[in-house]
Amino acid sequence: MKIAISTGGGDCPGLNAVIRGVVRSAIFRYGWEVIGIRDGLDGLVHGWEPIPLGLDQVKGILSRGGTIIGTTNKGNPFRYEVEENGTRVVHDLSARVLDNFRATGAEALIMVGGDGTLGIGRQLMDLGIPCVFVPKTIDCDVAATDSTFGYHTAVGIVTEALDRLHTTAESHRRAMVVEVMGRYAGWIALESGIAGSADVILLPEIPYDLDAVFNKLEGRKKLGRNFSVVVVAEGALPKEGSRTVAVAAETDGRAERLGGVGQVVAQQIEEGLGIETRTVVLGHVQRGGTPSHTDRILGSRFGVEAVELIRRGEFGRMVSLKGQEIVSVPVADAIDNLRLVDPDGQLVATAEALGICCGR
Amino acid sequence: MKIAISTGGGDCPGLNAVIRGVVRSAIFRYGWEVIGIRDGLDGLVHGWEPIPLGLDQVKGILSRGGTIIGTTNKGNPFRYEVEENGTRVVHDLSARVLDNFRATGAEALIMVGGDGTLGIGRQLMDLGIPCVFVPKTIDCDVAATDSTFGYHTAVGIVTEALDRLHTTAESHRRAMVVEVMGRYAGWIALESGIAGSADVILLPEIPYDLDAVFNKLEGRKKLGRNFSVVVVAEGALPKEGSRTVAVAAETDGRAERLGGVGQVVAQQIEEGLGIETRTVVLGHVQRGGTPSHTDRILGSRFGVEAVELIRRGEFGRMVSLKGQEIVSVPVADAIDNLRLVDPDGQLVATAEALGICCGR
Amino acid sequence: MKIAISTGGGDCPGLNAVIRGVVRSAIFRYGWEVIGIRDGLDGLVHGWEPIPLGLDQVKGILSRGGTIIGTTNKGNPFRYEVEENGTRVVHDLSARVLDNFRATGAEALIMVGGDGTLGIGRQLMDLGIPCVFVPKTIDCDVAATDSTFGYHTAVGIVTEALDRLHTTAESHRRAMVVEVMGRYAGWIALESGIAGSADVILLPEIPYDLDAVFNKLEGRKKLGRNFSVVVVAEGALPKEGSRTVAVAAETDGRAERLGGVGQVVAQQIEEGLGIETRTVVLGHVQRGGTPSHTDRILGSRFGVEAVELIRRGEFGRMVSLKGQEIVSVPVADAIDNLRLVDPDGQLVATAEALGICCGR
Amino acid sequence: MKIAISTGGGDCPGLNAVIRGVVRSAIFRYGWEVIGIRDGLDGLVHGWEPIPLGLDQVKGILSRGGTIIGTTNKGNPFRYEVEENGTRVVHDLSARVLDNFRATGAEALIMVGGDGTLGIGRQLMDLGIPCVFVPKTIDCDVAATDSTFGYHTAVGIVTEALDRLHTTAESHRRAMVVEVMGRYAGWIALESGIAGSADVILLPEIPYDLDAVFNKLEGRKKLGRNFSVVVVAEGALPKEGSRTVAVAAETDGRAERLGGVGQVVAQQIEEGLGIETRTVVLGHVQRGGTPSHTDRILGSRFGVEAVELIRRGEFGRMVSLKGQEIVSVPVADAIDNLRLVDPDGQLVATAEALGICCGR
Repeated sequence: MKIAISTGGGDCPGLNAVIRGVVRSAIFRYGWEVIGIRDGLDGLVHGWEPIPLGLDQVKGILSRGGTIIGTTNKGNPFRYEVEENGTRVVHDLSARVLDNFRATGAEALIMVGGDGTLGIGRQLMDLGIPCVFVPKTIDCDVAATDSTFGYHTAVGIVTEALDRLHTTAESHRRAMVVEVMGRYAGWIALESGIAGSADVILLPEIPYDLDAVFNKLEGRKKLGRNFSVVVVAEGALPKEGSRTVAVAAETDGRAERLGGVGQVVAQQIEEGLGIETRTVVLGHVQRGGTPSHTDRILGSRFGVEAVELIRRGEFGRMVSLKGQEIVSVPVADAIDNLRLVDPDGQLVATAEALGICCGR
Repeated sequence: MKIAISTGGGDCPGLNAVIRGVVRSAIFRYGWEVIGIRDGLDGLVHGWEPIPLGLDQVKGILSRGGTIIGTTNKGNPFRYEVEENGTRVVHDLSARVLDNFRATGAEALIMVGGDGTLGIGRQLMDLGIPCVFVPKTIDCDVAATDSTFGYHTAVGIVTEALDRLHTTAESHRRAMVVEVMGRYAGWIALESGIAGSADVILLPEIPYDLDAVFNKLEGRKKLGRNFSVVVVAEGALPKEGSRTVAVAAETDGRAERLGGVGQVVAQQIEEGLGIETRTVVLGHVQRGGTPSHTDRILGSRFGVEAVELIRRGEFGRMVSLKGQEIVSVPVADAIDNLRLVDPDGQLVATAEALGICCGR
Repeated sequence: MKIAISTGGGDCPGLNAVIRGVVRSAIFRYGWEVIGIRDGLDGLVHGWEPIPLGLDQVKGILSRGGTIIGTTNKGNPFRYEVEENGTRVVHDLSARVLDNFRATGAEALIMVGGDGTLGIGRQLMDLGIPCVFVPKTIDCDVAATDSTFGYHTAVGIVTEALDRLHTTAESHRRAMVVEVMGRYAGWIALESGIAGSADVILLPEIPYDLDAVFNKLEGRKKLGRNFSVVVVAEGALPKEGSRTVAVAAETDGRAERLGGVGQVVAQQIEEGLGIETRTVVLGHVQRGGTPSHTDRILGSRFGVEAVELIRRGEFGRMVSLKGQEIVSVPVADAIDNLRLVDPDGQLVATAEALGICCGR
Repeated sequence: MKIAISTGGGDCPGLNAVIRGVVRSAIFRYGWEVIGIRDGLDGLVHGWEPIPLGLDQVKGILSRGGTIIGTTNKGNPFRYEVEENGTRVVHDLSARVLDNFRATGAEALIMVGGDGTLGIGRQLMDLGIPCVFVPKTIDCDVAATDSTFGYHTAVGIVTEALDRLHTTAESHRRAMVVEVMGRYAGWIALESGIAGSADVILLPEIPYDLDAVFNKLEGRKKLGRNFSVVVVAEGALPKEGSRTVAVAAETDGRAERLGGVGQVVAQQIEEGLGIETRTVVLGHVQRGGTPSHTDRILGSRFGVEAVELIRRGEFGRMVSLKGQEIVSVPVADAIDNLRLVDPDGQLVATAEALGICCGR
């Protein structure tokens, strides 16, 4: 028996833990052979030689970020973009993928990826490739699982950055605006903001009212706190009709020009309250490096369970964390269905009970 | 309204997060006053002045280990040990505790502690002190909650130590035996062992068979792996009738003399297999220092919820994590009732699927 | 005897170590009293109450970033900017500073700061305030000392970020351009680049030739290395006449619009070589947080020696690290005199021997 | 041209940086070939196949602890211990080493090691193997160089442990005694003790007087500090005639039985002052894991310079850090000649000025 694994989309700490979990349990439990598809599905699109994955290949990778088999943010084989004579053309290369998969001799494919990858996987199943799925999202926004690997490491990195920024903010009596990942879901901003003692947290799920933010910062001044830390998810947006929108209109698309929402908010604080403000955009450091123990364990468990799904012939299912257990769900449950922060849920209420302004 | 908080038993990273969560939510939500009892219940036994806990007192403590109000491993007021004329005498000082509590003017007491503290708390309730409870155990072995703060930080510290020890073990072709916390429950050994790529994990819940350990290490040699990392919970014990027991008998109580189970296992590996072996006892570094973001958030949530229990008058209940939510349970559910690793559960099975020997 | 201390300019990890070193050695060795001037010299400009600095005030601050007495990047009392009727006016407020200093009762002032602060200090000496100096520069560019506190922590933070970015760059086959601090001196870029295994390091001291950078990246491709890490000091500039300048001209000030030199270089790599490239600007996280042990020790030693300078009456001198010893030098040696990377020195030669392109 | 490298003695973070520095500069600068001798000199004793060291072999090792070519604490070929018929016999196998070295085709050998390795190297030179040397000592006690790689990482690990132990010591009002590496030289204890805010530091270079230690701890109590952190180098010894010796005599070799000097001191504090005391022996975690940036840079510079020594034909010399520059010295300068802490030097004086008791 031979099985294949591919990793697609942005990299997350813990991907190598999944690969190692698959390889070790396939070998130790069942004596199976494992191969890795290179760079998402590009290895199948182009017919590149797969990577044999034995015990030696996965030695020492548990503590390493990234993915040893490569990944890509592009490469949907059903809508593959290529450049022909200077223009971008879209082709359906799925037949090639099927041929190349069959040529590898593998009997099943473990696809590790986010929303996009899972959707492509479902189409590959229809084509005749038996797939099982492992959810991957640094933002923790894939539905039908309580958590995903990589997310925990990211929150840890942001929390450490907030710890660092506190001392410099306090020494200079400044506001620091920190823009973090989270296009649709604000989990990273919310959890790191609580852990990193933020004063304001702005999430995509709660359109923010600038007056609420200003009130919070002015309230701190009255308490003798002359510095503030504001965490902003990259997907945060102002409430319609709020002062923010007016400012944005006045400034004629300044947000675009300034960079991201972090810089917009920083400028509004500086102009609106006269507080010296600095912006930090954490960027790619949030997704790299040694995974936390939580992500190593979760990735390993997902990998082990993916092998079990294949053994039991449960194709079309995705591994998932529910409470303390790894279970599986139909992959369809996770597609076109985001796991968002509930504005009326317990975690936001806790943040507000702690005195954090969540933009309302 | 005035409420009191005390922290008892061994310290855990996250205790200050609980205190801060209590203080901030009591003040911001309800305008209550909060006081801290010094050193577990010793402050009430001795009638020491309580510590006023306002916003200034909890500023900056979220990222600090320990507890700003002090703790103690001793001091059960119902059986209080004192030295009189050179001998230890036991007194029931609970009446004094009641008087001194009343003198503080507090209307409720939040007790943060482990099994021992929770039991004392139930007795204080009978005496007439309205209590609510927050579970605290570095070993994560309090029943009726999915997790406790401090545990996550401890697993992180052990995992980092295992990462360090791997490189030195490999360079010298040695076995490293690492003794970690876990008197009754092996959670720290199990989770850090999986995350830290251990070859063997010995837990209190699975009496270990030395032959299984030897087989694992010899199997590694055959694979060309001339080094090994063995994680041993301090409460791990050999299986009756196994070779270990025989060795222990022969050596006339050597385990006692050698220190802990880590050193016993190390010596057995060295003598039995001729592998150069070193022991590391991680000790108190496991419970100190900056809490991880996970423990800061969990501690904060527990603190906020403890205040809610008081507001709702739900005395005798303990805050608890169930899945993603903070709930409450009767404190009796947590007393005399440990949360242990299930030898037949999914996590041990995963460890074994990854090729880790769990001593059987 | 009473002495005063002030901290000016951007904050650095280790400032609190200096303050603590001053306070503890002044008290333990000589029984002196110490006070802290608030926010650089602003405390003297405005006559704010100084902060009494005893053992309790410096307890626990050794491991904390920032400065407990505050700092500011503004506030030259000889040219103090204030807003009057909507326009900025410059006043000489030095007489006020002298009066307020005398009113504190302090007999000497320890000024901790960079080039600007040291220059102001010399003028204060002329005015009659007996000063001694402690150099402070996160970029390690103050002349007349081998090193300064804060710098080491900054290099550690950047190195850790480079470690993280390597895995994500490799997984995605990208170039990552990382812009770090270093306006005039490239020490942070050079040392973190060597430690973090950068492929290219661009420094203010070596105007860079884009062709050299391109050759390096193309050479890596030929070796099968499809990813690269480029470290750019914020003050790096292209060589005149090089392709970079041409591009900058074509694009009509794009550097300005794009943000910093990091983004310019990233865009040039993407356009010139067709390599997917991402930029990270590390920003303020580089100067915050827990100081490394090196900076705690250096700050402590500087603080202890500053007290000795006062005791020996050696005013006008600055403490300095020479080899393994703390010595002192006339403050004039450090003013208008930067410590720069020597393009022909050993460290750059080592980087190049390791295969790193330094832009030439 | 082909050159060889071997690493001997206990492993240090930074060994891989040396190997990588040698390989990269040999290849990039001179096009030489590099091979690695396995496990110190054992590879030459046994005639094992050397490890070819190209760019691929040293990829990614800069941030990894240990040594990819292995090391050993044994294996002096001039006095090689083997077991024959159950007894240990000593042989001179140096002729075999010479033959096997010649068989590799290498024209020079870079020996990385401590005092023992350097001495053996000198004998190998006499035998006709052209050697250059790189000093390696985690304790930083090799003479003729200002610093060595690995040491800095060790001090960082100990400082972090002291930070952790502070919070638990304070919460429980305990004394924590921390035993650290340093058999002959107390650099690790001294530097980490200053950085980690120790109250007492005991070094091999200053025989300690227990009364001085007791005075310090009692003085803290009077200041309301009910906890203390005591750092003890493993090689620390009591002053003759001091109370310690008396206690040791009384207890009939208890030090031996208790483990190390850390436990002796802990017991003396507990018995002498009635303070609850705990001991932590940091052990092997001090020498493992990711090297700090300082050690990566120093190791890289040493490796690059070792290649230069070979190119210039300067055999018999050892690379060395002097101030900011890498130079070379005759290896004889480093043999039988330790770099010790000067009890009358500036660093001890600084520690004492900060209020730290250094045992006198």
